[in-house]
Amino acid sequence: MTEKFMSMRNLKFLLYEVFDAASLTRHPYYAEYDRKMLDMVLQAAEELAKGVLWPHYQEMDRTPPELVDDVVKVHPSVRKALKEQGEGGWIAMTVPEELDGQQLPHMIADSCRFIFCAANYSGAAYSGLCDGAARLIENFGGKELYDAFVPNMRGGLWQGTMALTEPEAGSSLSDITTTAEPTEDGYYRIQGQKIFISAGDHDGVENVVHLMLARIKGASFGVKGISLFVVPKKRIGEKGDLVNNDVVVSGVFHKLGYRGCPTTQLSIGDKNDCRGYLVGEPHNGLRYMFQMMNEARIGVGMGACAMATAAYYASLDYATVRNQGRKIEEKNPSNPPVPIIEHADVKRMLLFQRSVVEGALSLLLQCSKYVDMKNVGSDEEKEKYALLLDLLTPIAKSYPSETGILAISQGLQCFGGSGYCDDYPLEQYYRDARIHPIHEGTTGIHGMDLLGRKIPMKNGRAFGLYLEVVETTIGEARGMSELEPYARQLAGFLEKLKQVTFHLGGVQKERGIEHALADASLYLELFGIIAVAWQWLIQAIVIIRALKGELSQAEKDFYQGKFHTFRYFFCYELPKAEGFVNRLMHTDGMTVLMKKEWFSD
Amino acid sequence: MTEKFMSMRNLKFLLYEVFDAASLTRHPYYAEYDRKMLDMVLQAAEELAKGVLWPHYQEMDRTPPELVDDVVKVHPSVRKALKEQGEGGWIAMTVPEELDGQQLPHMIADSCRFIFCAANYSGAAYSGLCDGAARLIENFGGKELYDAFVPNMRGGLWQGTMALTEPEAGSSLSDITTTAEPTEDGYYRIQGQKIFISAGDHDGVENVVHLMLARIKGASFGVKGISLFVVPKKRIGEKGDLVNNDVVVSGVFHKLGYRGCPTTQLSIGDKNDCRGYLVGEPHNGLRYMFQMMNEARIGVGMGACAMATAAYYASLDYATVRNQGRKIEEKNPSNPPVPIIEHADVKRMLLFQRSVVEGALSLLLQCSKYVDMKNVGSDEEKEKYALLLDLLTPIAKSYPSETGILAISQGLQCFGGSGYCDDYPLEQYYRDARIHPIHEGTTGIHGMDLLGRKIPMKNGRAFGLYLEVVETTIGEARGMSELEPYARQLAGFLEKLKQVTFHLGGVQKERGIEHALADASLYLELFGIIAVAWQWLIQAIVIIRALKGELSQAEKDFYQGKFHTFRYFFCYELPKAEGFVNRLMHTDGMTVLMKKEWFSD
Repeated sequence: MTEKFMSMRNLKFLLYEVFDAASLTRHPYYAEYDRKMLDMVLQAAEELAKGVLWPHYQEMDRTPPELVDDVVKVHPSVRKALKEQGEGGWIAMTVPEELDGQQLPHMIADSCRFIFCAANYSGAAYSGLCDGAARLIENFGGKELYDAFVPNMRGGLWQGTMALTEPEAGSSLSDITTTAEPTEDGYYRIQGQKIFISAGDHDGVENVVHLMLARIKGASFGVKGISLFVVPKKRIGEKGDLVNNDVVVSGVFHKLGYRGCPTTQLSIGDKNDCRGYLVGEPHNGLRYMFQMMNEARIGVGMGACAMATAAYYASLDYATVRNQGRKIEEKNPSNPPVPIIEHADVKRMLLFQRSVVEGALSLLLQCSKYVDMKNVGSDEEKEKYALLLDLLTPIAKSYPSETGILAISQGLQCFGGSGYCDDYPLEQYYRDARIHPIHEGTTGIHGMDLLGRKIPMKNGRAFGLYLEVVETTIGEARGMSELEPYARQLAGFLEKLKQVTFHLGGVQKERGIEHALADASLYLELFGIIAVAWQWLIQAIVIIRALKGELSQAEKDFYQGKFHTFRYFFCYELPKAEGFVNRLMHTDGMTVLMKKEWFSD
Repeated sequence: MTEKFMSMRNLKFLLYEVFDAASLTRHPYYAEYDRKMLDMVLQAAEELAKGVLWPHYQEMDRTPPELVDDVVKVHPSVRKALKEQGEGGWIAMTVPEELDGQQLPHMIADSCRFIFCAANYSGAAYSGLCDGAARLIENFGGKELYDAFVPNMRGGLWQGTMALTEPEAGSSLSDITTTAEPTEDGYYRIQGQKIFISAGDHDGVENVVHLMLARIKGASFGVKGISLFVVPKKRIGEKGDLVNNDVVVSGVFHKLGYRGCPTTQLSIGDKNDCRGYLVGEPHNGLRYMFQMMNEARIGVGMGACAMATAAYYASLDYATVRNQGRKIEEKNPSNPPVPIIEHADVKRMLLFQRSVVEGALSLLLQCSKYVDMKNVGSDEEKEKYALLLDLLTPIAKSYPSETGILAISQGLQCFGGSGYCDDYPLEQYYRDARIHPIHEGTTGIHGMDLLGRKIPMKNGRAFGLYLEVVETTIGEARGMSELEPYARQLAGFLEKLKQVTFHLGGVQKERGIEHALADASLYLELFGIIAVAWQWLIQAIVIIRALKGELSQAEKDFYQGKFHTFRYFFCYELPKAEGFVNRLMHTDGMTVLMKKEWFSD
């Protein structure tokens, strides 16, 4: 197995050369940092990833979690990794210093998460969940809950979770039936069933803290009746001891992949002795939870991108050392075979992988930058970047998830028959990656979120801002002779995207929302390809400028490789947008009109 | 788990209504059969599939083959299924009666294989390999080898295999190093290593008969020095007893899927006591083997299509019974949720699956019909259909393999989180199906086969014939008002395919073969989409005619469903061809020119 699972060179290219992450340190909030310190953080993240995550990637898959005597046994490295991450401040990277956090820019924190996930996605999931759940308590839970739970969660001693899904409420959260009955003592009695809860229980921690959605008795149907609770596995007793809180793991799912992290089923309050603590106001649970979910969605995109990155480097390594076949023009069979990276079709597969993962990473870091800007920018900037972030979240989640799978599949293909066997890591990446289009909202849900909510919100203001930022990039690239044709190509597709969007708006007026949203998944895909093309054009501007300077051979190779990968995306991937435009401009409601009886045979 | 893994109604629609399989029985060679008897064969195949294959589909995956004391232990059902298939004549379906075969048309035999593979792909692989290996001996091996081996292989008592791949010779068969040393006793001493040999050893049979490629000592380098041998695990001793033949299983691969059938590594002749029997002439081995490989390639396509079919019916069943969410226009959250098949996006995913599997099955049966016609047609027909079959083989292998994976992935998506868990069969289909673009020639190999060999062969005669048959369909559809726009759409793409083909011919003249073939995989994909659109147009002609007659409600639903699926393909899938045309018309040699150093970071 190759030792390389990500490229620090490319990460720094994006962070510093493309997005000027170092400039964030000029804002007072990040003034404690400078470029050198940010580099040190990245290096420390890589060392941690190499030390406690990467070595266990395969083994955690092969010895998956088991439910033994009501406790989920996980790989022993989980405890160690969580503890190290807690002690090192990695579960509080973006938390303000006044709360003992690192107060790092999101761009850097997200880059560290990228490194962790590339090393071992399942292994990195535990701390990511702790971080998100802790933030939710920090933002909405008040001091008492904060003091009781957050320090242990950020210390890597207590696991945090998102406990949303129920057997009859998956994509449709409004159907949640877990109940919360108020008591005179301030807490609520919780009863219900939760499924698909990642890290919902395990023996790598002393306690598990669920951020759980439930319905206060008597609350209205639908999403407006849902509240958010802290529901620990063990509550804090009167003497400060830990007391069982009637939350029982009733099962561990056997999964295709992502096996290093247990996905659990929970029975809550079977003995009517489960206490939950309300977070914020009643009936506002989903709104709070969406804060965590929006972060988690970008986190899934980052994880998907990271996994596909690791798979890419494994394929690249194999293609370099595996000899097979000869150049197509070589007629003499007694000449030795060549490394398969010499074959154009293998290079095509590698370029596909690379164009997807480096394009997606760029988009994800663009989103991270928007998070930072909405935190430290002027009021006007805050609004602008919040809107752009909202708009791009479904893309940042779905593009890496869906395309990452295709990239990994091409990576597996580079290995031939060996890719299908577990002597090499590709088969595991292939299994692991399939979770991404499912968790944190399926791709279908994100399509509807983009087209049905994000595009029309505030009279299309976010979409208008998006068109502006893309047009700015196009304008800049137009002035560079090397990029002019690509800028023109992207401008053409951006115009088509506008037409499609306008057209679908018309469909909604004429035939209603069901017709307008029927092909929302295709719209999402179209939007994603164009967004990543935009990101590649942003990169290309930097690449072209760099290539004009004095460079070492290694640096020349790096920028030439990047430039070719950019061109690959525009020549092979962007043209795919045409088929989607074609379909979306000819909406005919076919899938709406298809009757279920017609599926009868 | 649903009990339905394929649609007999659709199979018969294709066989009889579209391809008029019954007309084959007018040829003297098939005169023993009539429609009723063919139906009985199909029904018997379905019963056998339900009896001995389908029940073990999941269990064979979960208790994969193990190497114990030099023997591969497989699921106990393997022995039973092979025996039943042998006794029932299922391993000799297309064998002439004079050789104790069933002398069935290939269309029917391939349909039976489709049924078996839909029920249990791994389980069906054993008999398929016996059949193919036996046919190779029958055609090229002479009477002595035939008598010694074939009856037991067709009886399901001895396993047949294709033993080609070696550690250093996968896609590049010309690098085979297994040696064969002639002896004075007529046999050859074989020595070497083979890997990735399906069913290369197991305890469900008494013996294993390898059809093995090896190089006679002193033979020239490359494919011209390769010969074909029968190499049994146990040779027949002087007293007719079975004697160990120095073929040792040195390993069983641990695979992503396709686990019900062992993939083995073999060490041959370690004690210099392995006897191989030459098949046909020396140095002609690859030519003989290609007969089996060409059949096996269509067999892989059929298996891929069958697996995706079974996955489709599992998804359809789930979509019908799983309630989640409400119609998008439903504002009242207290109204009950609807089956997810009511959601347009779920219907889209189901239509995608169905359009792919029914389109692919049509193409595969079209190929089967060409096999039949080349067997029983006039001399002129024989040549024509042999050429069409040659041309379409890489498509018939690759389209179902590649698109089947995408179909299964969408099927998994219909299940949401449950699709990722092994409580439902989708995760297994997802793993199993990934083998198809790899075995029997990777997709990249088939792209080069199509564009580099099949298109130019005989001065483009096969391609010319193909254009003619597609144009005939287009002409017929043009005369039907319901189909005229679709016929026009296909005609447009066929014209573009011609232009692309012509353009790439020019590239070869100007810049050489490496440039011309660099995007052969994309050409293969483009060709496949158009070929399947053609098949859907053929089906649509029959559908429209049927809808004009008197029909029961069930039949009306069937044809309406088919018609919508046809439209889906033309509206959602065929437009994707545009992106490939766009790319292929702008060949710029990017992947040829990409240097490996540029991948350095």
